[in-house]
Amino acid sequence: MSENEKLTIVMFSGDMDKAIAGFIIATTGASMGMDVTMYFTFWGLNIIKRNEGKIKSHGIMRKMLNRMNRGGAKRLKLSKFNMLGMGTWMMKKLMKETNTPSIDEFIKMAQDMGVKMVPCSTSIGVMGLSADAFREGVSSIAGAAFFLNEARQSKVTLFI
Amino acid sequence: MSENEKLTIVMFSGDMDKAIAGFIIATTGASMGMDVTMYFTFWGLNIIKRNEGKIKSHGIMRKMLNRMNRGGAKRLKLSKFNMLGMGTWMMKKLMKETNTPSIDEFIKMAQDMGVKMVPCSTSIGVMGLSADAFREGVSSIAGAAFFLNEARQSKVTLFI
Amino acid sequence: MSENEKLTIVMFSGDMDKAIAGFIIATTGASMGMDVTMYFTFWGLNIIKRNEGKIKSHGIMRKMLNRMNRGGAKRLKLSKFNMLGMGTWMMKKLMKETNTPSIDEFIKMAQDMGVKMVPCSTSIGVMGLSADAFREGVSSIAGAAFFLNEARQSKVTLFI
Repeated sequence: MSENEKLTIVMFSGDMDKAIAGFIIATTGASMGMDVTMYFTFWGLNIIKRNEGKIKSHGIMRKMLNRMNRGGAKRLKLSKFNMLGMGTWMMKKLMKETNTPSIDEFIKMAQDMGVKMVPCSTSIGVMGLSADAFREGVSSIAGAAFFLNEARQSKVTLFI
Repeated sequence: MSENEKLTIVMFSGDMDKAIAGFIIATTGASMGMDVTMYFTFWGLNIIKRNEGKIKSHGIMRKMLNRMNRGGAKRLKLSKFNMLGMGTWMMKKLMKETNTPSIDEFIKMAQDMGVKMVPCSTSIGVMGLSADAFREGVSSIAGAAFFLNEARQSKVTLFI
Repeated sequence: MSENEKLTIVMFSGDMDKAIAGFIIATTGASMGMDVTMYFTFWGLNIIKRNEGKIKSHGIMRKMLNRMNRGGAKRLKLSKFNMLGMGTWMMKKLMKETNTPSIDEFIKMAQDMGVKMVPCSTSIGVMGLSADAFREGVSSIAGAAFFLNEARQSKVTLFI
């Protein structure tokens, strides 16, 4: 087992602003030599859904949920001032102007830096998602016991 | 004093989705042998209000607040896609289908497992709640110093 | 370096209710002898913007953003039941009645108690804010590496 200090982040929210915060902290931690695990649960699963194609699921209610709640890094919205997408579009432009990576780029950077991205098995079950809902490079799904075991060994644990 | 590892969770939000996340983590922690304290503050107090009867308080403003903000585990709503209650109703059905406990059941499970549930005295004061607003089995009220003292001894502390 | 226990709080949200929670915990920590750092990022920057005057920035999009998102401790709103400002006004009255400090008073108390308040440099860059957007007594801006370095030395770290 590694002796690096650990950083564990629960990504509960699927809001663009919180996702950015999570990835800035995660990639900064990795660049400081920390072992970083991001645990994606509930709306946070949207961040790591693949951008292309349809997300399949069984039953009318799950089909509705997964259509409304499509997700994918490119579809996340600001928690405030979304204004039918205009605020979100503006924020993306401002980030680009200041050379801040997009969430899509942040995910790739984080993966290249060895950040582990783990989807929560319970949320996946309730929402009826299959493994192919997620983008490449995402780890196997795991439950809350996995998260707590990481967290209890971590110097820093955040719930975002 | 117990030598078990401690887990402390601030339950600030009264949203159904965040409440579920909190109880999944709390009950998982307890099943792993951790000493778990949940500290309920602000909107999070809604989670542990009793489901039945009226919540009394003094003065017109507090009466209004406590009517709008009635709370009780059975009345919590999703933070997203509530859609006049339809989204919340759907989520409850999906949870039942996948044998995920309801929040009401989670509270009982957590209590049976020895999870301490402590209401925040400051919020209770501001909102004008009396002790009989809460369900049975909830601990005595305590202030932020109690929470911080638990947190500083904890392996994992989360603000939800 | 101080040998006091450390408490680090990320203030991500600009909601009045979360700001209050943050300051109650921060000032309680300071009164218990902890070294407290509050790291203000994204909407949380609104909490420490000065109340008076205009917030200047360059370009149409940033000017729009900083007008809508004016901030200042006196302008924060409840995350729920704002009701065009009525809920927020009511909450302020209830806090006054119970001798709970206003956020403005909390900031001054916290500063008097030695709580460090650090604005996040990345958010400031994206939002195009200048140093004179913030009230007096706020520390120099710093990035996520500063935050993580504080957090890894802390007994308790919260993301609010």
